[in-house]
Amino acid sequence: MVPRVSIVTLGVDDLDRAVRFYEAMGLTRHAGITDGVAFFQMGGIILSLFPRSELAKDAGIHPDGSGFSGVALAYNTRSQAEVDAVLEQAVAAGGTIVRPAGRAFWGGRTGYFADTEGHLWEVAHNPAFPIAADGTITLPA
Amino acid sequence: MVPRVSIVTLGVDDLDRAVRFYEAMGLTRHAGITDGVAFFQMGGIILSLFPRSELAKDAGIHPDGSGFSGVALAYNTRSQAEVDAVLEQAVAAGGTIVRPAGRAFWGGRTGYFADTEGHLWEVAHNPAFPIAADGTITLPA
Repeated sequence: MVPRVSIVTLGVDDLDRAVRFYEAMGLTRHAGITDGVAFFQMGGIILSLFPRSELAKDAGIHPDGSGFSGVALAYNTRSQAEVDAVLEQAVAAGGTIVRPAGRAFWGGRTGYFADTEGHLWEVAHNPAFPIAADGTITLPA
Repeated sequence: MVPRVSIVTLGVDDLDRAVRFYEAMGLTRHAGITDGVAFFQMGGIILSLFPRSELAKDAGIHPDGSGFSGVALAYNTRSQAEVDAVLEQAVAAGGTIVRPAGRAFWGGRTGYFADTEGHLWEVAHNPAFPIAADGTITLPA
Protein backbone atom coordinates (compact mmCIF):
# COMPACT_ATOMS: atom_id res chain seq x y z
CA MET A 1 0.00 0.00 0.00
CA VAL A 2 1.35 3.38 -0.89
CA PRO A 3 0.04 6.49 0.84
CA ARG A 4 -3.22 7.32 -0.86
CA VAL A 5 -6.96 7.11 -0.35
CA SER A 6 -8.88 6.76 -3.61
CA ILE A 7 -12.52 6.84 -2.62
CA VAL A 8 -14.55 7.51 0.51
CA THR A 9 -17.95 5.80 0.25
CA LEU A 10 -20.75 6.89 2.54
CA GLY A 11 -23.65 4.46 2.82
CA VAL A 12 -26.94 6.34 2.57
CA ASP A 13 -30.52 5.50 3.46
CA ASP A 14 -31.90 7.86 0.80
CA LEU A 15 -29.62 8.50 -2.15
CA ASP A 16 -31.65 11.36 -3.66
CA ARG A 17 -31.86 13.13 -0.31
CA ALA A 18 -28.12 12.74 0.23
CA VAL A 19 -27.34 14.02 -3.26
CA ARG A 20 -29.52 17.09 -2.67
CA PHE A 21 -27.60 17.73 0.55
CA TYR A 22 -24.15 17.56 -1.03
CA GLU A 23 -25.25 19.60 -4.04
CA ALA A 24 -26.61 22.23 -1.65
CA MET A 25 -23.19 22.17 0.03
CA GLY A 26 -21.77 23.37 -3.28
CA LEU A 27 -20.50 20.10 -4.71
CA THR A 28 -21.13 18.91 -8.26
CA ARG A 29 -22.38 15.39 -8.85
CA HIS A 30 -20.55 13.52 -11.58
CA ALA A 31 -22.93 13.42 -14.54
CA GLY A 32 -21.52 10.31 -16.19
CA ILE A 33 -22.23 7.53 -13.67
CA THR A 34 -25.54 8.07 -11.90
CA ASP A 35 -27.28 4.70 -11.82
CA GLY A 36 -27.84 3.95 -8.14
CA VAL A 37 -24.73 5.81 -7.03
CA ALA A 38 -23.46 9.38 -6.84
CA PHE A 39 -19.85 10.41 -7.29
CA PHE A 40 -18.22 13.73 -6.47
CA GLN A 41 -14.68 14.60 -7.56
CA MET A 42 -13.08 16.01 -4.40
CA GLY A 43 -9.69 17.21 -5.57
CA GLY A 44 -7.56 14.10 -5.95
CA ILE A 45 -10.02 11.71 -4.31
CA ILE A 46 -13.62 10.71 -4.96
CA LEU A 47 -16.57 10.94 -2.58
CA SER A 48 -19.18 8.28 -3.30
CA LEU A 49 -22.73 7.98 -2.03
CA PHE A 50 -24.16 4.48 -2.27
CA PRO A 51 -27.18 2.87 -0.63
CA ARG A 52 -26.11 1.52 2.73
CA SER A 53 -27.66 -1.89 2.06
CA GLU A 54 -25.87 -2.14 -1.30
CA LEU A 55 -22.57 -1.17 0.28
CA ALA A 56 -22.95 -3.89 2.90
CA LYS A 57 -23.85 -6.40 0.19
CA ASP A 58 -20.84 -5.35 -1.88
CA ALA A 59 -18.57 -5.91 1.11
CA GLY A 60 -20.32 -9.17 1.94
CA ILE A 61 -21.29 -8.12 5.46
CA HIS A 62 -24.50 -7.76 7.45
CA PRO A 63 -26.06 -4.32 6.89
CA ASP A 64 -27.28 -3.79 10.45
CA GLY A 65 -25.52 -1.19 12.48
CA SER A 66 -26.47 1.61 14.82
CA GLY A 67 -25.03 4.43 16.87
CA PHE A 68 -21.66 6.07 16.37
CA SER A 69 -20.00 4.93 13.13
CA GLY A 70 -16.50 5.51 14.47
CA VAL A 71 -15.61 7.59 11.41
CA ALA A 72 -15.43 11.33 10.84
CA LEU A 73 -14.42 13.22 7.74
CA ALA A 74 -12.87 16.65 8.11
CA TYR A 75 -13.13 19.70 5.94
CA ASN A 76 -10.39 22.12 6.86
CA THR A 77 -10.95 25.80 6.16
CA ARG A 78 -8.67 28.70 5.36
CA SER A 79 -10.14 30.95 8.07
CA GLN A 80 -12.01 30.76 11.38
CA ALA A 81 -15.04 32.53 9.91
CA GLU A 82 -15.29 29.86 7.23
CA VAL A 83 -15.90 27.23 9.94
CA ASP A 84 -19.09 29.02 10.93
CA ALA A 85 -20.09 29.60 7.31
CA VAL A 86 -19.75 25.93 6.36
CA LEU A 87 -21.72 24.82 9.42
CA GLU A 88 -24.47 27.31 8.52
CA GLN A 89 -24.43 26.03 4.96
CA ALA A 90 -24.84 22.47 6.27
CA VAL A 91 -27.94 23.44 8.22
CA ALA A 92 -29.40 25.25 5.22
CA ALA A 93 -28.70 22.14 3.13
CA GLY A 94 -30.68 19.92 5.50
CA GLY A 95 -27.92 18.69 7.78
CA THR A 96 -27.66 18.90 11.54
CA ILE A 97 -25.21 20.68 13.81
CA VAL A 98 -23.70 18.05 16.07
CA ARG A 99 -21.19 20.30 17.81
CA PRO A 100 -21.47 24.06 17.40
CA ALA A 101 -18.37 25.95 16.32
CA GLY A 102 -16.00 26.64 19.16
CA ARG A 103 -12.43 26.38 20.31
CA ALA A 104 -10.74 23.07 19.56
CA PHE A 105 -8.65 21.35 22.23
CA TRP A 106 -5.72 21.64 19.80
CA GLY A 107 -6.14 25.39 19.62
CA GLY A 108 -8.04 26.08 16.40
CA ARG A 109 -11.74 26.51 15.71
CA THR A 110 -13.92 23.48 15.06
CA GLY A 111 -17.47 22.23 14.81
CA TYR A 112 -19.21 19.11 13.55
CA PHE A 113 -22.22 18.58 11.35
CA ALA A 114 -24.02 15.41 10.30
CA ASP A 115 -25.27 15.01 6.76
CA THR A 116 -28.85 13.87 6.11
CA GLU A 117 -27.73 10.25 6.53
CA GLY A 118 -25.95 10.80 9.82
CA HIS A 119 -22.35 10.89 8.58
CA LEU A 120 -20.08 13.15 10.60
CA TRP A 121 -17.99 15.96 9.17
CA GLU A 122 -15.70 18.07 11.27
CA VAL A 123 -15.23 21.60 9.95
CA ALA A 124 -11.98 22.95 11.29
CA HIS A 125 -9.56 25.81 11.00
CA ASN A 126 -6.08 24.59 11.90
CA PRO A 127 -3.30 26.94 10.79
CA ALA A 128 -0.74 24.28 11.72
CA PHE A 129 -1.92 22.10 8.80
CA PRO A 130 -1.29 24.21 5.68
CA ILE A 131 -3.78 24.07 2.81
CA ALA A 132 -2.31 24.56 -0.66
CA ALA A 133 -3.96 26.50 -3.46
CA ASP A 134 -5.28 23.23 -4.91
CA GLY A 135 -6.92 22.31 -1.58
CA THR A 136 -4.47 19.61 -0.55
CA ILE A 137 -3.49 19.61 3.10
CA THR A 138 -0.10 18.84 4.61
CA LEU A 139 0.98 17.77 8.08
CA PRO A 140 3.53 20.10 9.68
CA ALA A 141 7.17 19.35 8.90
CA MET B 1 -17.79 23.99 0.69
CA VAL B 2 -15.41 23.48 -2.16
CA PRO B 3 -14.61 19.98 -3.38
CA ARG B 4 -12.04 18.60 -0.98
CA VAL B 5 -11.71 16.20 1.91
CA SER B 6 -8.96 17.19 4.33
CA ILE B 7 -8.83 14.38 6.87
CA VAL B 8 -10.38 10.96 7.33
CA THR B 9 -10.42 10.03 11.01
CA LEU B 10 -10.89 6.42 12.02
CA GLY B 11 -11.88 5.86 15.63
CA VAL B 12 -9.82 3.04 17.11
CA ASP B 13 -10.18 0.84 20.16
CA ASP B 14 -6.42 0.32 20.42
CA LEU B 15 -4.28 3.09 18.96
CA ASP B 16 -0.96 1.23 19.17
CA ARG B 17 -2.43 -1.85 17.51
CA ALA B 18 -3.96 0.25 14.74
CA VAL B 19 -0.66 2.09 14.17
CA ARG B 20 1.19 -1.21 13.89
CA PHE B 21 -1.35 -2.35 11.30
CA TYR B 22 -1.03 0.74 9.10
CA GLU B 23 2.75 0.76 9.43
CA ALA B 24 2.79 -2.89 8.36
CA MET B 25 0.67 -1.82 5.38
CA GLY B 26 3.62 0.32 4.34
CA LEU B 27 2.49 3.71 5.61
CA THR B 28 4.66 6.09 7.61
CA ARG B 29 3.33 7.63 10.81
CA HIS B 30 3.90 11.35 11.11
CA ALA B 31 6.66 11.77 13.68
CA GLY B 32 5.74 15.25 14.82
CA ILE B 33 2.33 14.85 16.46
CA THR B 34 2.05 11.55 18.29
CA ASP B 35 0.38 12.29 21.61
CA GLY B 36 -2.79 10.17 21.64
CA VAL B 37 -3.24 10.34 17.90
CA ALA B 38 -1.55 9.05 14.75
CA PHE B 39 -1.43 10.90 11.45
CA PHE B 40 -0.46 9.57 8.04
CA GLN B 41 0.08 11.86 5.04
CA MET B 42 -1.89 10.15 2.26
CA GLY B 43 -1.07 12.20 -0.80
CA GLY B 44 -3.11 15.39 -0.52
CA ILE B 45 -5.22 14.25 2.42
CA ILE B 46 -4.48 13.03 5.94
CA LEU B 47 -5.50 9.75 7.55
CA SER B 48 -5.93 10.07 11.29
CA LEU B 49 -6.27 7.37 13.93
CA PHE B 50 -7.83 8.57 17.17
CA PRO B 51 -9.35 6.66 20.08
CA ARG B 52 -12.98 6.04 19.30
CA SER B 53 -14.16 7.38 22.66
CA GLU B 54 -12.12 10.56 22.20
CA LEU B 55 -13.52 11.06 18.71
CA ALA B 56 -17.08 10.74 20.02
CA LYS B 57 -16.26 13.18 22.82
CA ASP B 58 -14.73 15.64 20.36
CA ALA B 59 -17.89 15.52 18.26
CA GLY B 60 -20.07 15.74 21.35
CA ILE B 61 -21.94 12.52 20.69
CA HIS B 62 -22.51 9.22 22.49
CA PRO B 63 -19.66 6.77 21.79
CA ASP B 64 -21.84 3.65 21.59
CA GLY B 65 -22.27 2.05 18.24
CA SER B 66 -22.20 -1.41 16.77
CA GLY B 67 -22.43 -3.29 13.52
CA PHE B 68 -21.83 -1.89 10.07
CA SER B 69 -20.40 1.64 10.19
CA GLY B 70 -21.90 2.60 6.85
CA VAL B 71 -18.51 3.83 5.62
CA ALA B 72 -15.89 2.24 3.39
CA LEU B 73 -12.60 3.65 2.19
CA ALA B 74 -11.22 2.49 -1.12
CA TYR B 75 -7.66 1.97 -2.24
CA ASN B 76 -7.57 1.73 -6.02
CA THR B 77 -4.72 -0.17 -7.60
CA ARG B 78 -2.91 0.09 -10.91
CA SER B 79 -3.33 -3.61 -11.73
CA GLN B 80 -5.57 -6.59 -10.94
CA ALA B 81 -2.69 -8.47 -9.33
CA GLU B 82 -2.15 -5.60 -6.93
CA VAL B 83 -5.66 -6.13 -5.51
CA ASP B 84 -4.62 -9.59 -4.33
CA ALA B 85 -1.25 -8.35 -3.10
CA VAL B 86 -2.76 -5.60 -0.94
CA LEU B 87 -5.34 -7.97 0.54
CA GLU B 88 -2.54 -10.42 1.38
CA GLN B 89 -0.56 -7.58 2.93
CA ALA B 90 -3.60 -6.68 5.07
CA VAL B 91 -3.81 -10.21 6.43
CA ALA B 92 -0.08 -10.27 7.14
CA ALA B 93 -0.47 -6.93 8.95
CA GLY B 94 -3.15 -8.30 11.27
CA GLY B 95 -6.29 -7.35 9.35
CA THR B 96 -9.12 -9.55 8.15
CA ILE B 97 -10.39 -10.38 4.68
CA VAL B 98 -14.04 -9.41 4.58
CA ARG B 99 -14.64 -10.18 0.91
CA PRO B 100 -12.02 -12.15 -1.01
CA ALA B 101 -10.78 -10.71 -4.29
CA GLY B 102 -13.11 -11.36 -7.18
CA ARG B 103 -14.96 -9.78 -10.04
CA ALA B 104 -16.74 -6.52 -9.20
CA PHE B 105 -20.31 -5.93 -10.39
CA TRP B 106 -18.93 -2.91 -12.27
CA GLY B 107 -16.47 -5.09 -14.13
CA GLY B 108 -13.14 -4.68 -12.35
CA ARG B 109 -11.50 -6.69 -9.59
CA THR B 110 -12.29 -5.97 -5.96
CA GLY B 111 -12.00 -7.25 -2.43
CA TYR B 112 -12.50 -5.84 1.06
CA PHE B 113 -10.42 -6.02 4.20
CA ALA B 114 -11.08 -4.76 7.70
CA ASP B 115 -8.29 -3.18 9.71
CA THR B 116 -7.65 -4.29 13.29
CA GLU B 117 -10.37 -1.90 14.51
CA GLY B 118 -13.01 -3.11 12.03
CA HIS B 119 -12.81 -0.27 9.50
CA LEU B 120 -13.55 -1.37 5.95
CA TRP B 121 -11.26 -0.81 2.98
CA GLU B 122 -12.16 -1.85 -0.51
CA VAL B 123 -9.15 -2.70 -2.68
CA ALA B 124 -10.14 -2.29 -6.29
CA HIS B 125 -8.77 -2.22 -9.79
CA ASN B 126 -11.00 -0.03 -11.93
CA PRO B 127 -9.38 0.99 -15.24
CA ALA B 128 -12.28 3.41 -15.84
CA PHE B 129 -11.05 5.62 -12.98
CA PRO B 130 -7.54 6.72 -14.01
CA ILE B 131 -4.82 7.02 -11.36
CA ALA B 132 -2.20 9.69 -11.99
CA ALA B 133 1.49 9.32 -11.25
CA ASP B 134 0.98 11.17 -7.94
CA GLY B 135 -1.75 8.72 -6.88
CA THR B 136 -4.71 11.03 -7.39
CA ILE B 137 -7.76 9.43 -8.99
CA THR B 138 -10.16 10.97 -11.48
CA LEU B 139 -13.72 10.14 -12.46
CA PRO B 140 -14.16 9.43 -16.19
CA ALA B 141 -14.87 12.46 -18.37
